[in-house]
Amino acid sequence: MSTLTTTTAAATEPTEPTVTEVARRARTAAAGLAPLPRSAKDAALQAVADALEARVEEIVEANAADVARAREAGTAESVVDRLTLTPERVRAIASDVRDVAALPDPVGEVVRGSTLPNGIDLRQVRVPLGVVGIVYEARPNVTVDAAALCLKSGNAVLLRGSSSAYSSNTALVAVLRDAVAGAGLPADAVQLVPGEGRDAVHELMRARGLVDVLIPRGGASLIRTVVEQSTVPVIETGTGNCHVYVDADADLDTAVEILLNSKAHRVSVCNAAETLLVHRDIAGAFLPRALDALAGAGVTVHGDERVLALAAGTGATVVEATEEDWETEYLSYDIAAAVVDSLDAAVAHIRRWSSGHTEAIVTTSQQAARRFTQLVDSTTVAVNASTRFTDGGQFGFGAEIGISTQKLHARGPMGLPELTSTKYIVTGDGHVRP
Amino acid sequence: MSTLTTTTAAATEPTEPTVTEVARRARTAAAGLAPLPRSAKDAALQAVADALEARVEEIVEANAADVARAREAGTAESVVDRLTLTPERVRAIASDVRDVAALPDPVGEVVRGSTLPNGIDLRQVRVPLGVVGIVYEARPNVTVDAAALCLKSGNAVLLRGSSSAYSSNTALVAVLRDAVAGAGLPADAVQLVPGEGRDAVHELMRARGLVDVLIPRGGASLIRTVVEQSTVPVIETGTGNCHVYVDADADLDTAVEILLNSKAHRVSVCNAAETLLVHRDIAGAFLPRALDALAGAGVTVHGDERVLALAAGTGATVVEATEEDWETEYLSYDIAAAVVDSLDAAVAHIRRWSSGHTEAIVTTSQQAARRFTQLVDSTTVAVNASTRFTDGGQFGFGAEIGISTQKLHARGPMGLPELTSTKYIVTGDGHVRP
Repeated sequence: MSTLTTTTAAATEPTEPTVTEVARRARTAAAGLAPLPRSAKDAALQAVADALEARVEEIVEANAADVARAREAGTAESVVDRLTLTPERVRAIASDVRDVAALPDPVGEVVRGSTLPNGIDLRQVRVPLGVVGIVYEARPNVTVDAAALCLKSGNAVLLRGSSSAYSSNTALVAVLRDAVAGAGLPADAVQLVPGEGRDAVHELMRARGLVDVLIPRGGASLIRTVVEQSTVPVIETGTGNCHVYVDADADLDTAVEILLNSKAHRVSVCNAAETLLVHRDIAGAFLPRALDALAGAGVTVHGDERVLALAAGTGATVVEATEEDWETEYLSYDIAAAVVDSLDAAVAHIRRWSSGHTEAIVTTSQQAARRFTQLVDSTTVAVNASTRFTDGGQFGFGAEIGISTQKLHARGPMGLPELTSTKYIVTGDGHVRP
Repeated sequence: MSTLTTTTAAATEPTEPTVTEVARRARTAAAGLAPLPRSAKDAALQAVADALEARVEEIVEANAADVARAREAGTAESVVDRLTLTPERVRAIASDVRDVAALPDPVGEVVRGSTLPNGIDLRQVRVPLGVVGIVYEARPNVTVDAAALCLKSGNAVLLRGSSSAYSSNTALVAVLRDAVAGAGLPADAVQLVPGEGRDAVHELMRARGLVDVLIPRGGASLIRTVVEQSTVPVIETGTGNCHVYVDADADLDTAVEILLNSKAHRVSVCNAAETLLVHRDIAGAFLPRALDALAGAGVTVHGDERVLALAAGTGATVVEATEEDWETEYLSYDIAAAVVDSLDAAVAHIRRWSSGHTEAIVTTSQQAARRFTQLVDSTTVAVNASTRFTDGGQFGFGAEIGISTQKLHARGPMGLPELTSTKYIVTGDGHVRP
């Protein structure tokens, strides 16, 4: 079965358009999308949701082929589960599309506006980016989510999912394109990047002038490759070596709760905590309790000397930390832990080792909170709150295309406005420069 | 004299730090700049202005060495003039620095803020980018302008000027560093990129993680090189193939004035018009007058067939346009000109050939103005105003680090806010995710 699928794909390859052709079509589609009013885009999104619901069987069947192939290849069940689409999951995806339709349209928003001294009216307004390329792994729901967010923000999207979800993505994109075209929008606003393997991704990364931005979503090596090789501007997403710092003045209950939630609420996500830093003045009171709580949640602690010394008599599993632990994004029931001499030492540790995603401080001191938020240079600084709040949904953005960990264009959770650029409209009545 | 200077520079080279070392120092300096209040940054800028005025002789003397070398090398006088610093010019540069000090501080501005349904306070605040690299050509005033804008926005700056201004830039940066240090800020906030030729620029372009953004300012080939090769995020600046479109319903006097101002007010700048498009219904009335006016300003017209046909009897110098003319940024007393069948045909021409900088429409029709501004996808769309207004100073930004022609991060004239990123501050009182 899997052999048959592969052969079929290979046989149709010669008639497939090139990545550049596909990008050119997307560019044309984007020009058509840009001036559309919200009503037209929302109608298309509702049509997409309807079509996903109506064609759920077709989608699940296509997905079954991917799932069978993954199982045959001995893929881990947790990965197979993330790949799997059930009728219920497809309906949930459709519901997410309706949620995107309900969000305000970022396009046309006046970001800045004034009348210049010479009488010219100046307005800076949000416009779509144009063509957005998304390179992602595993979960086929990203295909629909990303397409919905791009459509809503007036962008054409080029989707490059993993080969393991090829059949699912092909079916989903067919449904999306039919629905978009049925609503009177250009079908080429949503396209899969054709071709096999790295060549296609490489061609996408060099399509500067046709593709306006590339957003890689997935593992660190995928992101590094795109960042290193792309001439298309890139938004780097998703690496999270997040820290929880417990200050000298901290409420112990609050600190334990925030630590546990940050680490163990969901370990596989980028906003989970990976390192605990504790001020030396509170370490004796806090760490034994914290280590017991972490042990209760099944978390292994990779501690420095001072943490190890305080672990005696607790139920905790504590191993000695090496330098590697400070930079590791475990994404598992593990946490690095160190005692620091001061808030500034905590900041220095974070500056050195953090990926710049999210760092939390637990403190009752206003001065400490202020200094920490001023000095820590990460997308999000949380004061007496879990690192898990760094999320487009939690921030009230309604949806999220990823979490940018770079400083240019967008930083932190990216909602619809982050999928736009701006242009200036200069209106005069015959104004010339003297 | 020039040989001596070169020998001296070569002799000191082995003790020079590497680009990476310099970038690391900038990174440390940036961490010190980020939390500074406006008063500290403004005091440093005033000290810089004072020092430039006090040490004007030293600067002019260093510049004289560059000028002598340029003359010996047979450099065109117009280029030598742009390279030359007189006491008056140095004082003007100092005055520009004081203007930057007077601008509002972008850092700390709350861009977005709300209280989430769970009671968490969310604020998105502007923060410095960190380390900004500027690669530029010729004019030594850019050295001071760029450093002042970066300091004001809390960024450390790595300056890479052209070798022809090496002596001037070295003297200017020495003055800047002394003044910055004298004001209690880290001197390494302002540094020249060491080393000769392309190797140093290449090292700068690969310093991802140390340098947050590279802004190339200069010729098209410099910009292309940086865009192609940099792994550090780049903001592309300055290519301007700008269009003036005269609609069917246009006031002829207004159209002639805007055309002349856009083309001939200053021909060497990126916001000068390079192509004229005229609706066929007004071509017969407008073009003869326009061609006469262009001839009066010494402009050569590269016209299509329909323009050539209407040129008979005018005083204009009109040559036949080839396809190359549509994409040429002349930066000279030349303009391409074509008659188009409709506003949409003008938009299609612009979409195909424009560099996306600035396009102007001259029209009395509200519908035409609206359609043009909706469909044209450039940094700036001007309605009944000269293309020459696309400028940070004209837009009231007070200063400008360049004009971005890309869509990511910043588009159009870039002022101080465009030299910042943002971070989110999440404040709770023990909030965890349920």
